[in-house]
Amino acid sequence: MDNRTVGVLGGGQLGRMFIESANRVGVKVIILDGDSAPAKQISAHGDHISGSFKDAAAVKKLAQICDVITVEIEHVDTQMLEEVADDGGVVVEPHWSTLRIIKDKFRQKMWLKDHGVEVAESVDLEGLGGGEEGMVGVCRRLGFPCMVKSKTEAYDGRGNFVVKSEEDFARAKKALGDRPLYAERWAEFCMELAVMVVKTKDGVKTFPTVETVHEDSICKLTYAPPRNVSRETAQRAQELAKRAVAAFEGKGVFGVEMFLLKDDSLLVNEIAPRPHNSGHYTIEACPLSQYDAHLRAILDLPVPEHGLRLREPAVMLNILGGQTPDSHVQIAQQALESPNASIHLYGKGEARPGRKMGHIVVTAPTLSAAEREMQPLIDAVDAQKGEPKVIPQTPSLSPDEPLVAVIMGSDSDLPILRPCFQILTTLSIPFTTRITSAHRTPDWLRTFSKTASSTSLRVIIGAAGGAAHLPGMCASWTTLPVIGVPVKATHLDGVDSLYSMTQMPRGEPVATVGINNSTNAALLAVRILGASDEGVRERLRVWMEGNEKEVLRKDKALFEGGWEAYLEGMGK
Amino acid sequence: MDNRTVGVLGGGQLGRMFIESANRVGVKVIILDGDSAPAKQISAHGDHISGSFKDAAAVKKLAQICDVITVEIEHVDTQMLEEVADDGGVVVEPHWSTLRIIKDKFRQKMWLKDHGVEVAESVDLEGLGGGEEGMVGVCRRLGFPCMVKSKTEAYDGRGNFVVKSEEDFARAKKALGDRPLYAERWAEFCMELAVMVVKTKDGVKTFPTVETVHEDSICKLTYAPPRNVSRETAQRAQELAKRAVAAFEGKGVFGVEMFLLKDDSLLVNEIAPRPHNSGHYTIEACPLSQYDAHLRAILDLPVPEHGLRLREPAVMLNILGGQTPDSHVQIAQQALESPNASIHLYGKGEARPGRKMGHIVVTAPTLSAAEREMQPLIDAVDAQKGEPKVIPQTPSLSPDEPLVAVIMGSDSDLPILRPCFQILTTLSIPFTTRITSAHRTPDWLRTFSKTASSTSLRVIIGAAGGAAHLPGMCASWTTLPVIGVPVKATHLDGVDSLYSMTQMPRGEPVATVGINNSTNAALLAVRILGASDEGVRERLRVWMEGNEKEVLRKDKALFEGGWEAYLEGMGK
Repeated sequence: MDNRTVGVLGGGQLGRMFIESANRVGVKVIILDGDSAPAKQISAHGDHISGSFKDAAAVKKLAQICDVITVEIEHVDTQMLEEVADDGGVVVEPHWSTLRIIKDKFRQKMWLKDHGVEVAESVDLEGLGGGEEGMVGVCRRLGFPCMVKSKTEAYDGRGNFVVKSEEDFARAKKALGDRPLYAERWAEFCMELAVMVVKTKDGVKTFPTVETVHEDSICKLTYAPPRNVSRETAQRAQELAKRAVAAFEGKGVFGVEMFLLKDDSLLVNEIAPRPHNSGHYTIEACPLSQYDAHLRAILDLPVPEHGLRLREPAVMLNILGGQTPDSHVQIAQQALESPNASIHLYGKGEARPGRKMGHIVVTAPTLSAAEREMQPLIDAVDAQKGEPKVIPQTPSLSPDEPLVAVIMGSDSDLPILRPCFQILTTLSIPFTTRITSAHRTPDWLRTFSKTASSTSLRVIIGAAGGAAHLPGMCASWTTLPVIGVPVKATHLDGVDSLYSMTQMPRGEPVATVGINNSTNAALLAVRILGASDEGVRERLRVWMEGNEKEVLRKDKALFEGGWEAYLEGMGK
Repeated sequence: MDNRTVGVLGGGQLGRMFIESANRVGVKVIILDGDSAPAKQISAHGDHISGSFKDAAAVKKLAQICDVITVEIEHVDTQMLEEVADDGGVVVEPHWSTLRIIKDKFRQKMWLKDHGVEVAESVDLEGLGGGEEGMVGVCRRLGFPCMVKSKTEAYDGRGNFVVKSEEDFARAKKALGDRPLYAERWAEFCMELAVMVVKTKDGVKTFPTVETVHEDSICKLTYAPPRNVSRETAQRAQELAKRAVAAFEGKGVFGVEMFLLKDDSLLVNEIAPRPHNSGHYTIEACPLSQYDAHLRAILDLPVPEHGLRLREPAVMLNILGGQTPDSHVQIAQQALESPNASIHLYGKGEARPGRKMGHIVVTAPTLSAAEREMQPLIDAVDAQKGEPKVIPQTPSLSPDEPLVAVIMGSDSDLPILRPCFQILTTLSIPFTTRITSAHRTPDWLRTFSKTASSTSLRVIIGAAGGAAHLPGMCASWTTLPVIGVPVKATHLDGVDSLYSMTQMPRGEPVATVGINNSTNAALLAVRILGASDEGVRERLRVWMEGNEKEVLRKDKALFEGGWEAYLEGMGK
């Protein structure tokens, strides 16, 4: 499809998944890395180059047989990339200057700041004068705790040190060796977000925002979409990521890691000028993966924006090397039992503890379903480490995930609701029942209503008599559809409740059914669920067909037997 | 994850996609095929065997270095497979006897018939006596047209001949050469369906039913789910496919092709004991692909049934070699512009006309959206062949896929509905408007209501005054949720319509809102759509927040400015 040859500096898991994409569309990729590199295992041609991606001579050799060169890691020899790009024989994407800036984390931060992108305050610890005392002074000014970081060769937490006090500084200096250092103000973040950005010849586009969870400074989990983050915040994260990447030259995908602070503001933490761990989920969850997008972007092939959408919510779990050589294999084997789990093992040799050996992606129609399916695998990972941890889940009402809540102001409404429960049971709709009075338990009704849409619930049925404020108040506190059943109380034959429910002000509708007709409330809930679920719709269709047949049977009996026999049969 | 080595007879596109799956979980696969076979290109180890999968000696050599042997094509040397399996050194999956039965199409049909599986009536044309006249006699008995087919080496339409009259027979005999023949009764089918079945050590499971469209006897398109086929029929197809595959020994995936006849009955057409073209869509559209499932089944690894579900509806288009050597490349290049298209090129050498060079899968939230996105690619394929054809589309109301229909009994209800339209527009809900009176156009209302659920519509809003039968009748003919807006007519202040809508009999609910309150009807529709669409829910939440702020602003103005100034500001 495209006759150009792509060279990649590095053939680890990112290079391997990149080659998966290239294989599918018949683009030839040449890897520069060791002979047993994961990427080389799935690409059988004989032109791969053996050597280190840090070796200038090897890079030059690669450039001679490729049309475009890209990277799976930024810690490469950018001098040689500059040289081969300037020779004009090969295109380097992203631009060598971008790699050069980004591989120095302090320079990266300064570059972003100079381009108006929000980052944590960072101060150079080199060339300060005053030796270690000068450095401690910087930390003091930033406040404790602060981060002391190596400018170079830093990833997966290597090269970072949390300095909690002045006394800590010496330990940081020792741990980070004689690498060039800088200090960073501590970001009081409540969550880490990440966005994969695609920079093409036409502009900057993004994949969805995800939440990342790190453990021991290594990415452990990603959640797409992020848990309990508003759409508005997720969009702001995408905009910030776009602005950050737009500051750099060249094409390809970029991973942008961000902090969501407690005041809801966002800071860029760091940028990777290549596919990134936080974008693995795109292979299953999006029409185009980050690897497809990278290949297309560096070759100037189309990257349609809608191809970056989420097909289904997804959770990704990294599989790291563990205590024993096959710890990671055990996790993968357990994942075989998980229906929605896609397993990726990278074909790396030895499984050192903490080494990224593979990952698992679970997609499901809802994020909470994906989380539930992933949880046993997270537990298994934690159990291997001997430190079971609990990752907070999206709130859920109960293990069996009710789709409908039937709420009533008083238990005296319960008998009226029996037919409702029977219909929901017949049509296999999971439901829950609660007593919550608008007047006697207004706070409980408010809590219930406000949290309903972040549980499994999709429809609420409220039964009430008299003033019958229950469904209307509930509708005012939720965005879910609320169905009202007017209950006939002592006076006025239920018309009081009927009016109270139908005559809601413009803005907060209650879907009102007939007086005491909880059957129809249940059937309306079924129709609402069926609007997006063909299975439910089909069950309802079959049920309605049964009713139709029953009436046709009666008609036949009346027609054939005559009205007298029929009335007699009715005992009337 | 699994240390066993899998050998495959054949390394074409099916073998290649099988290796994609095996690569991801680190299972070693050895291919027996020519050196440039597509499958070998993405598997770099040096143990592949060069030769033909029909060569007994090569099969034996493969068996010596594998733990399990499987096939990507059934036309293999089953004698040698029997021998190596009996030697006990290697497991052959599916069982060699299954391959032997299936590769002879007549024997396959008889086997299925003997196991109670519905197939087209088939008669052996060998050993009849009476020479060609005896064969013609069989065709005469089956009726014209009938099919004359080669028992062996028949696939992609090769080996089939439609015999329209007695005179045709000689041409069939000539075309099919001296291969063993059988005759088959013509199946008056209205559609072809296919199901991928997974046979594991624990039982038989299936992927969803798909529709297949053939052109020149080669699979051109698959639709998952099938277009305009009831869930019940799709389920029957899955059951039939299960029964058919259960009749054979061994494990792995099987492709079952079926005819859906005009009387709604199903016949098995033929079975493939391996991954199949009609299952390519599973790579993108299902959590487990047919290749994942095949690998797991033959290795006795878990195949969770829910992993075979459809993530999103999908359409698959084969890319065949065309008039020029790069015809297929042009199609793939055009597909790059299509956001939801996943492109697979198989790495085959020369593109002979009709050769399968690749395929494209488009997935989308609805089948009609996937169809619409695929249509330009189908048009491009047809244009290359110089024979533009129109593939009928799933009925759709209009190109922009309305989710809500607002129906009214008369145009006099239109002004009442203006706020409804405004809300739907503000919240970006695509909608359509129709005039359909329960009393003046009962047939049109019936047609509209009965077909609504097979279009893009998810909610119907009906406005009516007086007797106001419109929403109630609509609800009786559809399974979609119907919202009623009682319109205040000349008498009774709209209470007549309110009662008519709320007081529907048990069975067919109308979600009734306040009199003339079309705002709330629109908001209720938004809530219903939002129940399954977080994006819609978020837009609604933001809108409601705006209303809240507006009232709080007014409260502040009243509190701070006093009631007199406020009333003055209102001009009252």
